[in-house]
Amino acid sequence: MDKKIQNLKRLFNPQTIAVVGASNREGSVGNSVMKNLIGKVEGIVYPVNPKRKSILGIRTYSSISSIPDNIDLVVVATPAQTVPALVEECGKKKVGGMVIITAGFKEAGEEGKKLFEQVKELGKKHDVRIIGPNCLGILKPSMNLNASFANKMALPGKVAFISQSGALCTAVLDWSVQYNVGFSHFISMGSMADVGFECLLNYFENDSETEAVIMYMESLTNSRWFLQKAAEFSKKKPIIAVKVGKSSAGAKAALSHTGSLAGNDEVFNTAFEGAGIIRINESQEMYNIAQVLARQPFPKGKNLAIVTNAGGPGVIATDSLIENGGEIATLSKNTIKKLNEVLPPHWSHGNPVDVLGDADPGRYKKAVDLCLKDKNVDGALVILTPQSMTKPMEIAKSLIEIYNKHPEKPVYGVWMGEEDVELGRKSLEKGNIPVFKVPENGVRVFMAMYNYTRIKDKLNKEKTLSYKPNENKRKNKALITKILREKRNTLNEYEAKKFMLNYNIPVGEFEKANTSKQAANLSSKIGFPVVMKILSSDIMHKTEVGGVITDITDEKQAEKAYEKIITAAKKNAPKANIQGVLIEKQASKKYELLIGSKYDPLFGPTIVFGKGGVTVELEKDTAIELPPLNNKRARDLMEKTKIFQLLKGYRGMKGVSIKKLEKVLCNFSQLLCDFPELREVDINPFAVDEKGGVVLDAKIVIEKTDKKAPEHLALL
Amino acid sequence: MDKKIQNLKRLFNPQTIAVVGASNREGSVGNSVMKNLIGKVEGIVYPVNPKRKSILGIRTYSSISSIPDNIDLVVVATPAQTVPALVEECGKKKVGGMVIITAGFKEAGEEGKKLFEQVKELGKKHDVRIIGPNCLGILKPSMNLNASFANKMALPGKVAFISQSGALCTAVLDWSVQYNVGFSHFISMGSMADVGFECLLNYFENDSETEAVIMYMESLTNSRWFLQKAAEFSKKKPIIAVKVGKSSAGAKAALSHTGSLAGNDEVFNTAFEGAGIIRINESQEMYNIAQVLARQPFPKGKNLAIVTNAGGPGVIATDSLIENGGEIATLSKNTIKKLNEVLPPHWSHGNPVDVLGDADPGRYKKAVDLCLKDKNVDGALVILTPQSMTKPMEIAKSLIEIYNKHPEKPVYGVWMGEEDVELGRKSLEKGNIPVFKVPENGVRVFMAMYNYTRIKDKLNKEKTLSYKPNENKRKNKALITKILREKRNTLNEYEAKKFMLNYNIPVGEFEKANTSKQAANLSSKIGFPVVMKILSSDIMHKTEVGGVITDITDEKQAEKAYEKIITAAKKNAPKANIQGVLIEKQASKKYELLIGSKYDPLFGPTIVFGKGGVTVELEKDTAIELPPLNNKRARDLMEKTKIFQLLKGYRGMKGVSIKKLEKVLCNFSQLLCDFPELREVDINPFAVDEKGGVVLDAKIVIEKTDKKAPEHLALL
Repeated sequence: MDKKIQNLKRLFNPQTIAVVGASNREGSVGNSVMKNLIGKVEGIVYPVNPKRKSILGIRTYSSISSIPDNIDLVVVATPAQTVPALVEECGKKKVGGMVIITAGFKEAGEEGKKLFEQVKELGKKHDVRIIGPNCLGILKPSMNLNASFANKMALPGKVAFISQSGALCTAVLDWSVQYNVGFSHFISMGSMADVGFECLLNYFENDSETEAVIMYMESLTNSRWFLQKAAEFSKKKPIIAVKVGKSSAGAKAALSHTGSLAGNDEVFNTAFEGAGIIRINESQEMYNIAQVLARQPFPKGKNLAIVTNAGGPGVIATDSLIENGGEIATLSKNTIKKLNEVLPPHWSHGNPVDVLGDADPGRYKKAVDLCLKDKNVDGALVILTPQSMTKPMEIAKSLIEIYNKHPEKPVYGVWMGEEDVELGRKSLEKGNIPVFKVPENGVRVFMAMYNYTRIKDKLNKEKTLSYKPNENKRKNKALITKILREKRNTLNEYEAKKFMLNYNIPVGEFEKANTSKQAANLSSKIGFPVVMKILSSDIMHKTEVGGVITDITDEKQAEKAYEKIITAAKKNAPKANIQGVLIEKQASKKYELLIGSKYDPLFGPTIVFGKGGVTVELEKDTAIELPPLNNKRARDLMEKTKIFQLLKGYRGMKGVSIKKLEKVLCNFSQLLCDFPELREVDINPFAVDEKGGVVLDAKIVIEKTDKKAPEHLALL
Repeated sequence: MDKKIQNLKRLFNPQTIAVVGASNREGSVGNSVMKNLIGKVEGIVYPVNPKRKSILGIRTYSSISSIPDNIDLVVVATPAQTVPALVEECGKKKVGGMVIITAGFKEAGEEGKKLFEQVKELGKKHDVRIIGPNCLGILKPSMNLNASFANKMALPGKVAFISQSGALCTAVLDWSVQYNVGFSHFISMGSMADVGFECLLNYFENDSETEAVIMYMESLTNSRWFLQKAAEFSKKKPIIAVKVGKSSAGAKAALSHTGSLAGNDEVFNTAFEGAGIIRINESQEMYNIAQVLARQPFPKGKNLAIVTNAGGPGVIATDSLIENGGEIATLSKNTIKKLNEVLPPHWSHGNPVDVLGDADPGRYKKAVDLCLKDKNVDGALVILTPQSMTKPMEIAKSLIEIYNKHPEKPVYGVWMGEEDVELGRKSLEKGNIPVFKVPENGVRVFMAMYNYTRIKDKLNKEKTLSYKPNENKRKNKALITKILREKRNTLNEYEAKKFMLNYNIPVGEFEKANTSKQAANLSSKIGFPVVMKILSSDIMHKTEVGGVITDITDEKQAEKAYEKIITAAKKNAPKANIQGVLIEKQASKKYELLIGSKYDPLFGPTIVFGKGGVTVELEKDTAIELPPLNNKRARDLMEKTKIFQLLKGYRGMKGVSIKKLEKVLCNFSQLLCDFPELREVDINPFAVDEKGGVVLDAKIVIEKTDKKAPEHLALL
C-alpha cells in the first residue's frame, strides 16, 4: 500500500496519540484536547510538554522524539512558529499524521503564509499526513476518538462530515447530538496544508464504516482531481455538498456573451452535477439530509405517498412535491379498495391519504402499511398534527413497526407542533425514522435522496469519456502558434472561421480580400447576395466602426463596399491593424443559436449552448456543460434549453436536424479539448434551419499556456 | 353601530358565556371547553345541559333561554342536528355570537349540508354572529378567554392568527407557546357559515390590540369583498397569508393561449399583491414571520448589516439576501473607521462584519451598535456559532441592550447549534429579538418585512381607481347582444376587430368580403399586399383548414385567394357557418406581443401581457394584472416581462412607444371593465414597431351573465 494512504489510515485509526501543547490550564486548547482523549479513546495518549512533569496526572514527554513508542497521530496546539520544526521531528519519527489545531498560518499575513508553506513542504517530504492547520480537530465516534477541542463527542453513525469551517463544525456537532444523528468521521479541515477534499473522498471510498459524505465547502482547489475522484465515489456512495459563496460570482465584465452567461456558480453546479454530487442550497437542508442519510434507504423512484390526519398540511406537502419535481404516487385500485375497508367513509379516497382528525395509531398503521405495499409507491411521508384525540407517541411507535416491515422503502415523519409532539419526535428518531416539523422539509429531502438514486444510475450507465486529438489539430495549432507569435490574443474572423472549418464546424463559403478588385471577383465567385465585414483582430465590434455591409448583390456594389468599409475602419479605428475584408454568402436562417465557451479558472473550458442573437443576455435561454461531449451529452445539454423545443419541431413548425447539431457540438467540444489556449469562444449566431446550420460570426480569444491537452479538462 | 359589528364585538369580548353541551365526561369537547374557561376567563360562565344539575361544580341550565342573564357568547358542542334550533333560540335570546365547535355539517354529506344552510340562514335572520361550525374555537389571551377545546392557552401578543384549518391551529398554538410568541386573537374559522376572512379583517382593522394578521387560507369565497377589505387593511397593518393548494391549479385545457398562462395560482399571487397581502409559500416561514411581527419594527429599506463570528454563515446569509432581492448595506467610511478602532486587525473590513471566532459580548455589542448607527443600514442580522470561547447567553444579553438603544431598526439573531446556544436563544426571545437556527430564515423574514414596508408605501401613494364606462360601450354591447342572441359564444375575427376598434385598440384597415369580386375591390382599396382569412365563428384555427393566404399583391390574386379560401374551408370544415372572408393590410412589425384576458372564477377578468407569437407558451414571458389599469399600472405590468427591455430600446436597437402601449393596455382594461360577458380574449399577435402597434389576430369568447359592470371586478 502507498505510504501516504497507509499514514492517513494510521491518522484515522491511531493506537498511539501524542498531544503537543498538552496543558493543565483550564480552558486552553491543549487542556480541552487532553480531556477529550483521556479515559475515552482506546489507544495510548502521550502528553508532550517540556515544562510540566505531568498533565492531568499523566507523565509528560519533553518532545515527540523522546516518546519510547511509535506514534500514529500527533495533535498540535502550540504556537504557529513552533510547528514547522515539529513536522520535521514527526517526519523523522515516522509519525502517521498530524492534526494541527494551531491558528496563525495562511490567514495571518505574510509571516503566517511562509510558515504554512514550510509545513506543507515538510509534510510532503516526510509523508506525514496533515489535517489543518487552523482547525477544530477530528472525531471518530466508533473508536471514541475526539482529537479536537470541541466540547462534546459526536454520536457514532455512517456519515462522514467534512467541513472547511471550524465554526460550522461546532454548530453541526451540537445539533447532531441533540437530534440523535451520528457520524463515522467528523473532520474540521482548516487550511488544508495536505489533506483536502479529494484525499478524504479517496479514503472514505474504501472505508467500510462510511456510507455517505457530507461536505461543507467554501473554496475548492485541485478541482480536476476532486471532480474525477467525486465522480468515481458517487458511483458507489453519495456526496452531499453545501457550497457557499454564490452571489460573489458573476458581476464581472466579460468580453463575450458567453462570458457573462457562464457565471462561476452555474459552472459549479454543472461540474458538481457531472461528478454526481448532490449540491444543497440551504443550511437547513444539510441538517435534514444528514438525518435521513444516517437512517434510511434511498427511494427507488419519485412517487411519494402522503398519509396525514389533516387536509391542509397534506396539500402543502403535495405542492412542495410537485414544485420539486416529484410525483404524488397513484395508488392502485387494490390499495384503494383495502384502504376503504380500514378507513372511515370520509377518508380522502386517494393520495394524500387523509386518515382524518381522530385517527388512532391503528388507523395510521394500516394506512401506511397498505401504501408501502403498493408497488406504485416509492416512499411515505406521514404527517401528524396534534389534535385532541391524537396520540403522537403511540403513532410514532406504530410507524416504526411498519417501517421495520418495509425497510426497503423510506418513511419520514412530519410531527407538527412542539411540546405536544416532542416525545413522539424523539421516539421516531430513535426508531430510525427521520422527522421534521414542517412537510416541505421532508419532501425536499425525499427528492434530494431520489436525485442521488437517479444520478448514481446515470453515472453507472454512462460510457467513460476518453480523449483523442482531432486529425486536424496540427493545422489549428499552427494557426494559434502564429497568432501568439504575433503577440495577438484574438483571432480575426477569417482566422476564426478557418479554425472552425478545420474541425468540421460548418461555415458558409468565405474569402478574404485585400483589394476592391479582388473583393468583387471573390464575391462573384461565392455568389450574390454576399456580406462584407472588416477583418481586424483589433476590432471586436465591427458594426460600430461601420465595418459591416449586407445585401451586396453585384460586383460593382462589392467594389464600392470594399472601399467604404476600409475607409470607415481607418477613420473610426485609426490604430487597428487591418487585415482586409471578409466576404461571405449572405444566409437567412430560421433560428439563431449561441455556441460558446469560457475558460473557468477552476474547471477549465465550459460549453454554453442556447438561443443566440442580440438578446442572448436578456433571454438567458442557455445551458452549460463541461467538455468532452459525446452525442448523448450534447443532446442532454441542448434539452436543457427552451429553444430545443423549437429545434426539434414545435406545433406543426418544422424542426432542424438534431443529429447534425449534436455533431457540431461534439466538434466544438473537440476544439476545446485540443486547445488549452482557448479562453473565450463565441459563435453567435450559429444560424440553423431545416437545411443545416452555419457559423455566421465567431470570436475567439486565446492565451499562451503551459497546460497540455487533455489535462486542462475537469471531468475526464 | 351596525348590529352585526356590535354582536361580533360581544362575541370577542364576552362578559357572559354559555357552554351548550357542557359535560363532566373527561376527554369530551364539552368538558375541555368548560375546563378552559372556568376559573380563568373574566366573565361569567353558564353551563347548559338539561341532563345534569351541575358541571364541574357549577349549576347548569337546561337551555339558553332559561339563563337569567343576557348572553354574549354561546359555545356549542352538541350534535349537528341540535344546532339549527339552538341558533334560533340564541336569536330570540339576542345572543351576540356563537362558536360552533360541532362537526358534521358541510363536510358530512347531503344531510350535513342541509343543516349548514339552516344554521347560516338562521344566523343571518337574527344577526347572531357565528364562528364555525367544525372548528377548534377561539382564544383571546388578553382576557384569558379560551373558548376552544385546545389543550393550552396562547400567550398574549399583538398578532391575530386566523386559520381555516383547526388541525393547523393546534400545531401553531403548541409552537407559539414554546417559542414565546403571543397573539391578540387566535381563531379557528371552521366552515365559515357566517364570519369569514373579510369580516375579521374588518373587525381587526379597528381593534387596537391587533397590529398584524396572519391567515392560513385553504379556499376563498367573496373574493371581491375580501380583496377590497384587504387592500384597505394593508394600508394600516400587514396581512400575512399562507395560501395552500398551488399545484391543483393549471393543468386544465384552455381555449386560448392566455387561458393556459393565467393559472389559478398566478392569479392568486397577482390579486394578493394588489391587495397588499404578503403571501408566504413555506409553512416554516409562517412561524418565522410570526416571531418577528410579534416583536420588531418593520425595516425602512432593504439594506442589511450582517455581524458574525464565522465567515461561512456570513456568506450564506449574503447569498440568501441577494437571492431574495435584498442588499448588503454599504457601511459608511466613518463606520468602517470606528469598527477598525474596536475590532481586531483581522476583521473583514466590510459587511458582513466578521468579528472573528473569539468575539466576546463586548465586541459583538460595539460592532452591532456601530452598524445600527449607520444611516445606510436598515437592520442587522447577528450570527453566532458556538466556538470554544463564545458566550451565547452573554452575547444575547448585550444584543438586547443594543436593540433597546435602537428600537427603530430591526435586529434578528441567528444562534446556530442546539444545546450550547439554547439558553441564549431563549434569552433573545424574551428580550424581543427573534432568533433563528440558520441564517437563511432570518434573511427571508427580513425581506418579507421589508416587502410590507414597500407595499404599504405603494398602496398609500396609489390613486384610487374608479370606474367609468367607455363612450362606445353601447356599440359593443349591441354587438355582444346580437351574438348571444344567435346562440354563439365566439366572435369571428371581423367582429372581434370591430370590438377592439370601438375601444381605440389599433387595428389595421380591414374589410369583410362575401364575393370574389368584392374581395378584389376591397383589397385594392386597402392597398396591396393584403392578407385574406376565412371568417367563421366556428373556426378557431384558421390556418389548419387552409383559411389564410398571405402576400396577395394584385386584384387577380385576390379573386383567386377568395375562391381558394372558401373552397378549402367548405371542404375542411363542412359544418362551419362561414361568414365570408376578412381582408387586411399585410403588416410586418418588429415584435409580436400578447395581450389577453381570462375570466378567473374567483377574481373575475385578468389581464395577461407579454411576448406573443406561436412560442408564447414555450417562452412564458408574460405577466398578469387585474383590471382596471391606469397608465402607471399598465407600465408596471409591462415592466415585469423581459420583452419590455426590447420594447423600450435595447443595446442600440430602437424601441417602441411605451406611452402608446400603456394607452392600448388601458383601453383593453376598459373593455374588460365594461363587459362582464368576456370570458377569454386573446390578441396574439399585437404587432409593434417604432411606428406603432396593430392587432393582427384576435379571439374573443363570451358568455351570458347576470353580473353588471363593475361588480365583476375584484379590485376596485
